[in-house]
Amino acid sequence: MVRIALDAMGGDHAPLAPIAGAVRAARLWGYEIQLVGREAEIRPVLRQQGDLTGIEHLLQIVHAPEVIEMGEHPASAVRSKRQSSMATGIDLVKAGGADAFVSAGNTGGVLATALLGLRRISGVTSERPALVAQVPTLKGYCVVLDVGANADVKPEWLAQFALMGSLYSEIVLGRAKPSVATLSNGEEEGKGNAVLNEAVPLIRALPIHYVGNVEGNDITAGRVDVVVVDGFAGNVFLKTAEGVVATMTELIRKELTRNPLTALLALGLRPGFRAVRTRLSYEEVGGVPLLGVNGVVIVAHGRSSPYAIQNAIHQAGRCVELRLVERIRDRLAALA
Amino acid sequence: MVRIALDAMGGDHAPLAPIAGAVRAARLWGYEIQLVGREAEIRPVLRQQGDLTGIEHLLQIVHAPEVIEMGEHPASAVRSKRQSSMATGIDLVKAGGADAFVSAGNTGGVLATALLGLRRISGVTSERPALVAQVPTLKGYCVVLDVGANADVKPEWLAQFALMGSLYSEIVLGRAKPSVATLSNGEEEGKGNAVLNEAVPLIRALPIHYVGNVEGNDITAGRVDVVVVDGFAGNVFLKTAEGVVATMTELIRKELTRNPLTALLALGLRPGFRAVRTRLSYEEVGGVPLLGVNGVVIVAHGRSSPYAIQNAIHQAGRCVELRLVERIRDRLAALA
Repeated sequence: MVRIALDAMGGDHAPLAPIAGAVRAARLWGYEIQLVGREAEIRPVLRQQGDLTGIEHLLQIVHAPEVIEMGEHPASAVRSKRQSSMATGIDLVKAGGADAFVSAGNTGGVLATALLGLRRISGVTSERPALVAQVPTLKGYCVVLDVGANADVKPEWLAQFALMGSLYSEIVLGRAKPSVATLSNGEEEGKGNAVLNEAVPLIRALPIHYVGNVEGNDITAGRVDVVVVDGFAGNVFLKTAEGVVATMTELIRKELTRNPLTALLALGLRPGFRAVRTRLSYEEVGGVPLLGVNGVVIVAHGRSSPYAIQNAIHQAGRCVELRLVERIRDRLAALA
Repeated sequence: MVRIALDAMGGDHAPLAPIAGAVRAARLWGYEIQLVGREAEIRPVLRQQGDLTGIEHLLQIVHAPEVIEMGEHPASAVRSKRQSSMATGIDLVKAGGADAFVSAGNTGGVLATALLGLRRISGVTSERPALVAQVPTLKGYCVVLDVGANADVKPEWLAQFALMGSLYSEIVLGRAKPSVATLSNGEEEGKGNAVLNEAVPLIRALPIHYVGNVEGNDITAGRVDVVVVDGFAGNVFLKTAEGVVATMTELIRKELTRNPLTALLALGLRPGFRAVRTRLSYEEVGGVPLLGVNGVVIVAHGRSSPYAIQNAIHQAGRCVELRLVERIRDRLAALA
């Protein structure tokens, strides 16, 4: 049975959204979920979740008195709050009491706590683990990393991201021979910044299917399976994609409700629009895994709803069942 | 009268699109347009443009026997093809025979030719001029630079981009006190890569309205007037925004035409959808100015239609009329 430690205090809608998401995940997939956080805040919310017959034994509370807040400086918070819900959750994974940790809290806090508690997989040298986004495209999903953990990178880190991203696509998304590209400001070889140009020969030397540079528009078009980028430009990519979807949705809404007739027609199309929004929503995937640490850790969006948390927990469960971390560790060891 | 040198050989649809765009621009704004390129190819296309009565004297052909192709390596092409349409057009600006140069050709070629021929404005130290995009937002336009010319930047270059971007917003878009932000992977001070963190104090010291970091989603939301970024992440931003608009359009089209009833409803909404597409299309602005060289130079999209070229020419005309380059030069001199 998969056992998942969930940060009950993490995210804008905590503890309600994490707890409601945990209840759904326990019911859907039978995972054992440890709700980590302030017991006095968790217990009443859990009680409000309706009839828990049949899943009550799957939902446990693990008390942790401290909380790393959204606005806090990660490094100092991690040092000063040793009994935070994040530290306690990661300790559970480290000690073997849980198979994975999921949090919608302060991303920097999760990164620092995970790195401190679980350490890097042998062979991984990046300053922090990579954040891996599963981005919806015209053809399915594209794996993009790093989307924000390492703003400055070294060439060998980009090569490690390429290898781990290829393995993630193969193991979690079931691609047979994932195509891996580097994100650049132009497709021609030689385009890109200095660190990318140094990384390309290292990536070419890896036993993966590297196809060269792509540009920002190639990602959502679904041209490749995996895209490698530094955490600065990767975060610009991810936030821009989110922002353009929101802006375009708003422009369409305004335009179509401008007169009563088009508003009426648009009403008839609501299910269609909803399907597109769902397809493009981060809630469907739920979370962004950390790659490079010795354990399954998923960061969910700060604004996560119960549905988003449920899916983040599912993603964690799948990574555990598929033995993602062990297989990355084995592959890195075989290449060393 | 504004005199514009147009690269008649530049872009995927040359020479037809540039020539048709020039005819429209001459008719609409009375600009004198020099069609630069192979006379034997330009003349028959110009003849096919219908009745030119009243504007014939505004359209001149300036022969240039060579063409820098889209796929060519810019630096070597610029060195070997001294009689290209780009070199000839830039020479016209340099010699005072034209007030601006517009091209939909190889961007690297335009950058290199413009820099070689027109030189940097005194005080500008970046390796290349910055490419300045006018990005449609929920509230109007946001000026984003650099969107691709300088993949690696120095902190002082970012500060120069901030100053030039602020002036561009003020002069061309008429903002009284433009808000200027830096693009980063998080809003908190201290987020960002090393070069950005070194640039922030330099930008704070400038006589502009600097408001700190923003993220990718803040741009199309219209939160600020000007966004400063290195050419690598700036290009990722621009291409991603273009790509997401295309992907979302395609997903909506597929979803709404799935059954005959919704297809019929969607038909009634076509004008509304078209209005949104127009609002978000690069064709409305037409071109991306180069900032930092001694002259008005506009790079249009390689796929430019006649309409896009017309608008790029208009943008060049406005920069000339508003004395953009002279005013940037004066402000930089005053700060030196």
